[in-house]
Amino acid sequence: MKVLITGGAGFLGQLLADRLLKRGFLINRLGISEPISELILLDLVPANDFRDSRVRVCTGNIADSVSIKQLLSKEVTSIFHLAAIVSGQAEQDFDLGMAINLDASRYLLDSCRTLGHIPKVIFTSSVAVYGGNLPEVVLDSTALNPKSSYGSQKAMAELLLNDYSRKGYVDGRVLRLPTITVRPGKANQAASSFVSGIIREPIKGMQSICPVHTSLRVWVSSPDRAVESFIHGHDLSTSEISDSRTINLPGVSVTVAEMMSALEKVSGSQVVKHISVEPNEMIERIVQSWPGAWDDTRAKNLGFKGDTSFNEIIQNYITANLI
Amino acid sequence: MKVLITGGAGFLGQLLADRLLKRGFLINRLGISEPISELILLDLVPANDFRDSRVRVCTGNIADSVSIKQLLSKEVTSIFHLAAIVSGQAEQDFDLGMAINLDASRYLLDSCRTLGHIPKVIFTSSVAVYGGNLPEVVLDSTALNPKSSYGSQKAMAELLLNDYSRKGYVDGRVLRLPTITVRPGKANQAASSFVSGIIREPIKGMQSICPVHTSLRVWVSSPDRAVESFIHGHDLSTSEISDSRTINLPGVSVTVAEMMSALEKVSGSQVVKHISVEPNEMIERIVQSWPGAWDDTRAKNLGFKGDTSFNEIIQNYITANLI
Repeated sequence: MKVLITGGAGFLGQLLADRLLKRGFLINRLGISEPISELILLDLVPANDFRDSRVRVCTGNIADSVSIKQLLSKEVTSIFHLAAIVSGQAEQDFDLGMAINLDASRYLLDSCRTLGHIPKVIFTSSVAVYGGNLPEVVLDSTALNPKSSYGSQKAMAELLLNDYSRKGYVDGRVLRLPTITVRPGKANQAASSFVSGIIREPIKGMQSICPVHTSLRVWVSSPDRAVESFIHGHDLSTSEISDSRTINLPGVSVTVAEMMSALEKVSGSQVVKHISVEPNEMIERIVQSWPGAWDDTRAKNLGFKGDTSFNEIIQNYITANLI
Repeated sequence: MKVLITGGAGFLGQLLADRLLKRGFLINRLGISEPISELILLDLVPANDFRDSRVRVCTGNIADSVSIKQLLSKEVTSIFHLAAIVSGQAEQDFDLGMAINLDASRYLLDSCRTLGHIPKVIFTSSVAVYGGNLPEVVLDSTALNPKSSYGSQKAMAELLLNDYSRKGYVDGRVLRLPTITVRPGKANQAASSFVSGIIREPIKGMQSICPVHTSLRVWVSSPDRAVESFIHGHDLSTSEISDSRTINLPGVSVTVAEMMSALEKVSGSQVVKHISVEPNEMIERIVQSWPGAWDDTRAKNLGFKGDTSFNEIIQNYITANLI
């Protein structure tokens, strides 16, 4: 089988590519383990090719429907659609967010529909689809009420994935992600970028600004667990998810103050002194509209696994990135 | 002020036009009563002009963005966006449903955004945005899980209206309607068309097929109450609805068997004999995914009014249409 990852040069795209290459197979729609013959990594910038002959690096814009059509064929039976404009940027540039988060997702689904081969499409959504007056723990039955353009666009794309799946055009799976932490590298334009930044930068001995009050509760997942969930979500049989294609993935509920305590415990009190709390109204407004926890019973019943604690998340990040 | 009604030749569009012409004013964004100087009725076919000099009848397709731009101006400060492809047709013709129910709504909102005058936009949505495993009475906090393309498209357009309003591009109000009964005239391609048909045709002495089991519970409203709600929803001040632009309108919860009993009570046992129950799988699958009741407390607190009983709905229909 050929596998496409959109956003293939991104952090999660690259991590997923690494895991898929090491694993070498996916479960196809017949429930049979099938070797990955080609892994197409599409992004605006060239992805790492892992020096692996199965990897095909493609540069292009997923909003360009012609490029998408050229990349797809009936042999591409698994698509991980990770490409997105992140929350802060989608709030600043409304049209760009609509073009990538909604329109490009639709082009991709329509191209699959035209081919008619019903590929598995794994779409990553987010805590940002929720908002407004939320219960302490969000349930699968809780209404979406997004308070950002990013969240609105993700919620619309979720509806598309579900309807295209119901109509039999694709075999979609929508995985709603907690905020991913700790992301290595640099800060990005996600409103939640600080959720990684207040851990990553202090460990490096660098200053980090926390733009929200420390009482804010966030729902987080490590990158490793998220990528394992992408693969697990792909491999599930259609019958297991046909009543709803949307799954709220496991996470850890933690306040920003608790994140700082965990960092202090793991890395010492000097490290935490690099964080300065300077609330930023726009970021706070967006991030505090997201749930601090959701019920992940359905995900766990379906075999998805979460992190055990935030301490473990920090410890694993340090082990993977510094040693 | 100039007022635009899309779907202006449709049954609800014409009823709304009639009420607006008789009333003569709407409450503008400043909270001030303002006379209607022009009422633009846009539809694929020419609307009735009511022999009223304020009416401007326009034929055109709302999916044609050029036509929409030509119709709109900064003087059009109130838009009732009723045009839609109904549920049965949107299920049969996926692309047409997407083009009208989603894309045309977006063109309309984008045209308003370009003009920059923040008109009031009243958008009609539907019970069809709900679906799946629903509680007996749906709450405002209940998740949408549409089981039809029509419901998915309406849900996406709701998200657009909310986000465009949050961004300050329009002043939107999403009114979720119960199934409207009794519609005069002929059957249409809505999956719920029978909810009018099983009353309207028997009263005329004509045969009518009920395509669902009579135990099915439906959430209904008379056309008059719906149109009053459009005007009331328009006139509400922005501050009253700014936390959520989406309002579940009042209705009456009734089973199909109860509808038939009510018809028998009002029109006699001979009339009811014109109904034959012949379940149709596609129609039943769509209609039974809709809620049989929702909590309309918020709507009533905001001053929306519902019908008092299904008997009253039938009686009013007979009074208005036969006498």
